[in-house]
Order: sequence, then structure tokens, then C-alpha cells
Amino acid sequence: MASEAGEVILQLFVIFVAAKLLGGIGSRFGVPSVVGEILAGVVLANTVMGDMLHLSSDLEFLEILSELGVIFLIFTVGLETPFTEMKRVGTDSTIVAILGVIVPFGVGFGIMWALGYQTIEGLFIGAALVATSVGITARVLADMGVLSRTESRIILGAAVIDDVLGLMVLTLVEAIGGGGSIHPLTILTLMAQSLIFVGLLMFFGGRLVNRLVTDKNPLAERWEWTSGQGPIFSIAIVACLGLAALASSIGLAAIIGAFLAGMAFAATPQRHDLVERFEGLVQFLVPFFFGYIGLQVDLGEALSVWPLALGVTLAALLTKVVGCGVGALRLGKKAATAIGIGMMPRGEVGIIVALIGLSLNVISNALFSVVVVMSLLTTLVTPPLLVWAFKRLPGMSDGGSTS
Amino acid sequence: MASEAGEVILQLFVIFVAAKLLGGIGSRFGVPSVVGEILAGVVLANTVMGDMLHLSSDLEFLEILSELGVIFLIFTVGLETPFTEMKRVGTDSTIVAILGVIVPFGVGFGIMWALGYQTIEGLFIGAALVATSVGITARVLADMGVLSRTESRIILGAAVIDDVLGLMVLTLVEAIGGGGSIHPLTILTLMAQSLIFVGLLMFFGGRLVNRLVTDKNPLAERWEWTSGQGPIFSIAIVACLGLAALASSIGLAAIIGAFLAGMAFAATPQRHDLVERFEGLVQFLVPFFFGYIGLQVDLGEALSVWPLALGVTLAALLTKVVGCGVGALRLGKKAATAIGIGMMPRGEVGIIVALIGLSLNVISNALFSVVVVMSLLTTLVTPPLLVWAFKRLPGMSDGGSTS
Repeated sequence: MASEAGEVILQLFVIFVAAKLLGGIGSRFGVPSVVGEILAGVVLANTVMGDMLHLSSDLEFLEILSELGVIFLIFTVGLETPFTEMKRVGTDSTIVAILGVIVPFGVGFGIMWALGYQTIEGLFIGAALVATSVGITARVLADMGVLSRTESRIILGAAVIDDVLGLMVLTLVEAIGGGGSIHPLTILTLMAQSLIFVGLLMFFGGRLVNRLVTDKNPLAERWEWTSGQGPIFSIAIVACLGLAALASSIGLAAIIGAFLAGMAFAATPQRHDLVERFEGLVQFLVPFFFGYIGLQVDLGEALSVWPLALGVTLAALLTKVVGCGVGALRLGKKAATAIGIGMMPRGEVGIIVALIGLSLNVISNALFSVVVVMSLLTTLVTPPLLVWAFKRLPGMSDGGSTS
Repeated sequence: MASEAGEVILQLFVIFVAAKLLGGIGSRFGVPSVVGEILAGVVLANTVMGDMLHLSSDLEFLEILSELGVIFLIFTVGLETPFTEMKRVGTDSTIVAILGVIVPFGVGFGIMWALGYQTIEGLFIGAALVATSVGITARVLADMGVLSRTESRIILGAAVIDDVLGLMVLTLVEAIGGGGSIHPLTILTLMAQSLIFVGLLMFFGGRLVNRLVTDKNPLAERWEWTSGQGPIFSIAIVACLGLAALASSIGLAAIIGAFLAGMAFAATPQRHDLVERFEGLVQFLVPFFFGYIGLQVDLGEALSVWPLALGVTLAALLTKVVGCGVGALRLGKKAATAIGIGMMPRGEVGIIVALIGLSLNVISNALFSVVVVMSLLTTLVTPPLLVWAFKRLPGMSDGGSTS
């Protein structure tokens, strides 16, 4: 019998095929496959195919699949990131994150102010430049097989801290944009709450998980969660979704929760089993994440705002490279450059900030489009630059895979 | 930053946890875990928790996840079903399917006629009794590890033919309900089209896939579909989604396409690799399929129509057991009973038929509820009966897993 979901399956089929095809073509020409996957979304959104299939960036189920894709992607990245390693790079990550927040915010605000825009517009553009979207960087680093390098770990740690700081900036700017004032205590509470969330998980998450899943305390075995295939996968899914939802509910990105969940399982003996079990899930869902980013590009709209968009994009790229790079200079210029480039993509996070500005009526549709273009361009240019920057690092062979 | 999808992640978290918990509790008491998963949906839909989380059967993303879950589940069942085996049971499957369509349709129509309902109402109830929803049976058989038994293969083959026949019945009934007449050629075209679809895939799908993925014609290797992890998984996803969409577009159930896609890969050397790669996907998505079935139960509504609903449900159960069982009597009474029970669940397919009747204004809301109750009860009672019936078969040890 005909399924009501038939059209949706066709849409998913087309997006998956387009993403895999363009990803494959890209990687044959030395472009990271993730760029091809995003471009597949751009092509579908801006040609007659998208209209025929009723594809749009408004499709809720696509947003959900895309969100699940990046959540599981970042969870598996967390699986390869033991807490002891993160502790080692903690100071570097913190400095990188702080400078990577201050410089983009200041420069973004400064540019808008110099161009004669209103203060609140400058504040929102500054805030949109703050937040790194670590999904694309994580995917490229995973594809290159360099997640265990110090530079990668500094980027991942800095992305977590960046998200906490970005939440503070956004809360402040949102309060100002809403015309109200905000009590310093509110900001402090928010800050404390997210630091406690991150801190508790980092320090105790791994121990808790180990108690749950090891033989000494075999909750897993006493309680038959699943039918014969071992409960660890279900426990991992529960932890991943639960912490993603919790992170989201206190204002952090859902992927921060997923990353911390992954880290908590990084020291379990079943880690390799989990990596394998998540592989199919990640391979199926992740193309929808990148395809969905591409689907949000309206080329006509993008062209109509190009001068300012290009300027803001350049500022977005340079301020992260310089800000984060300076924070990591201790490790040498090449490592600092690689880290700065890894922090460049704004992805969906910049767009969320601009959406809030739009909903508060403090930024125009044109400025919103500028942020969208900036978010997507920073996301598109990062993969090739990141591959280049990591290949220059000491200890990297030139023959590494580029996709 | 807060994700817009935060609430959805929380909803998915709660459904997944509830399904795994009730599934686990069930299997401790000898009830197949899939029953617990459906009951989790019933509990969530009928308690304050569902209201708090805004859970309802209208959630589109949940329908999509559920559909993807059953598509991938049936694909992996197809992976364990080589074409040569299906050919062996072809005649038995066909007889089982034909009797399993005629008896339920006739009895369903007869009961309604005897109770004084209108002809068109009788036709729709009869049509709703026709279509087997093979998802739950496949899951139980897979959990028991008996997919390779002859009885299982007859059930799977009969479910495919049943769906083709069900499409004919529904098309006829729909035309009558719409007040128009239908040209015999239309029905013949539809029938030819679905038989060609099924036939071509059965006979040539495997050969085509083998040409695509084996070393002799390494399209896979010449074309770098994916980044290093081997392209077969991507090709399988493309085939699975593509054939599911195609089946859906010609009026068959999407899972029929997915099953045939799985069968086409069943003879490839990479079959085991695929089974593993799909495992995580299936384990994550399938609880949403069964949870979603449960979410559609409105206990209040069900109670209001219980006398007729119970009668129709009993008819639904008995007519499939008797009709399909008689068709399989050649294999002995125990095997015939097992096959008849395996064909009992109507699941979402019965509900789709009733929805069409509702949209044509030829059946009442009360009759619609009757069909919903029938679909869910047939789905709920099947797993324990199926476990019992398969354990009685020759060659089965008594110590087998029950979940």
C-alpha cells in the first residue's frame, strides 16, 4: 500500500545521492568531500530540482535528521577524545577560545560602527561572528585521521569553551536588543550553570560510565536493556540524546552535550565496539547535515548583499585565525594557523544568532542575509584550508588522504 | 547556543528510553521486547507525560524516523533472504497470500453485512483486514534467529504478494467508495506494474548488484563514493531508499522496495559487512517505529468502540490464521499455524486503508477507531503467539531466546 511518507523517502533519496555524488566528484579533484555535500544542497535549493521535489530549508524532518547527524558525528569524535588528553590541552584551549571570542566580536562590532550602522546591529553582527560551529572541522579532522593530534584536541576543547562564552555574549546582546536590561546575576548564573554542566561531565562522566558498563558493576548485565546485542549501544544512545537535550535546555549547543557524552565513553573497554556501531548511523545521517546547510543558500539573495557579505566574511575568517592563532602561538606558527583555521566555520550557529536579531526586529532582512552568507562561506572555505594547514604540520606525511 | 531542535531531541530521548525500558522489562518476563516498545508508546500517549512533551501521533519527524526504521529493518531482513531460497518457497507463498487475502476480505465484508452496515462500509472493513504489515513479524523472527527457516521465508514471500493483492483490493474499493467506476484495464495495468517491479527486482536485482560491487566490474572502486570507508554501504542506502520510494510511487508499501533491495544484496560477498553496518542504524531507529505505533492508541476512544472492535479483531486474527494456514497445510499443522500467525499483524497498513475510507466520507469515525484498535491488537498479540508457534516447530530447541 502507498505510504504517506513516500514523498519524503524520495526527497531523502535525492539529497543522499546528490551529496554522495558531488562529495565523490569533489574528492577526485582533491576537494574534501564535505564541500561537495554542502554544494549538493546549494544545487538542489537553487535549481528546478528543488522545486520539483518541494525541497526547502523549512522541512522540519530534514532539520531533525540533520541535527541527529551532527550529534552522532560529534559523539563519535568525543569517543576518540579521552578526558586525560583534554586536560593536557586545557590551558591552551581556554586561551584560544577567549581570544577567539574577543577579537571577532570587537572587530565585527567595529566594522558595523565604522559603516554607520546602529549600535545594536553592530552588537548582533559581533555576536554572530563569535560562535564556532565545530561540526565541519570535526568531520574534516576525522576524515584525515588526525583527531588524536594535539592541534585537533585544542580545537575541540576551544569549541566547547567558545560555546559557553558565546552563550554569555548572546544572552547579553539579546537582552539589550529586547530593550530591557539584564541583571549581572542572571549572566553569572548562566555562566555557572554551563560551567558546572561541562565540568561535572568532564570530570565525572567517564567514571560514571565506567561504573555502569564494566564487569565490576554490571548494571548492563543485570538489566536486559536490549535483545541480545549488548546494551552498551543503547546506553550510549541514551547518554548522547539525554546530554544533548540537557545542553540544549540550558542554552548550550546540543552537540556540546553529545561531545561530552562521547568523551565519557572514550575510556570504556567497549569504545571500539561503539565506534563501529555508530559508523552506519553517522554515515547515513551526516550527509543530511551538510546537505541541509547547503539547502539554506538562496543564491539570488546572497548576490544582492554581496559587498557587505564579503567584507563581513573576510572579517569572520581573519579574526578567528588571528585571534585563535595568537592564543596558540606557543605551539609554533604552523600549529597556530591550523588551530585558527579549524575555528573559522560559523555554520548554523551564526544563523541562529541572526534569527534572534531578526525576531527582535533589531536587524534587517539584508543584514540577516549577510550573516547567512558569512556562515556558509566560512563553512565552505574551511575544509580545503584545514587540509592544507594540517598537511604542513610536523609529523604529517604528504601522502595523506584529502577527503 | 540553544538549538531549535532541542525539544525534539528531548522527545526522541524519552521515547527511546521508554521503549528500551519497557522492552527490557517485558523480555525479563518472557514477553517479546517489541511488545514493550509498543506499550511504551501507548503509555506515553495516554498519560500526562505525553502532554508535557507535546508527543502526538501527528509529529511528522516521528513518522519519518519510524518509516526509516522499518525500511532499514526490512532491508536487513532482505539481506538474509537469498533469491534462490525465495524461489524455492514461491508456490507456497503464493497460495498462502491468495487465501490470506480472500478469507479475511470475505469474512470482514460478511460480518459487516450481517450487522446491517452499508455495502461500502463492509468493503472498506474487508479491505482493512487484507493487508499484512510484516514489520513486527520480521522483527520477532530476526530476534529469534529463525529468518532462514522455510516457514519464515514463506511468510516473507507471502507478505510481498499480499501487498500486491492488497493494492488491487484497495484500488477497487477506493474507486467504488469515490462513487465512480473503474476500468478493468486500470486494475490490470496496476497489477502488471507491481508484478513487473517485484519480478524484475527478484530475478535481476541480485545480478545487477553483483556486477556493481564485485571485483570484475569495480564501479565501486573506480568511483570514490565515500571517504575511505568503502562505498558499498552508500550504494546499499541508495538502493534501499530508491526502491522504497519507487515502490511507494506505484502504490506498494515502501518496505516492499526495501525488502527487494535487501534481497538483491543478499548474494554479495560484502553481505556480512552490510549487516554490521546497518545494525546501529536499525537499533537506533526501530524503537521509534514500534513506539510510534503505540503512540497512535487513544485508550478512551478504543474503549468507546470495544464490542465491535473486539469482534473485528477476532475475525482479523482467525481469518489470517485459517486462510494462510490452510494454504500452508502441506507443511504440517504446526508449520501452517506458525505461518498463519506470522501473517496476522495489520499494523499501519490497516490504518491507511481506514484513513482513505474516512477521507472519502464513506466510513464513520467510530468505524475508523474500530480499524485502529484491530490493527494495534493484531500487532500486539502476534509476537508472543509467534514465539510460541515457532518454538513448537521441529528442529527448534526449547531453550531459545524469547525476545
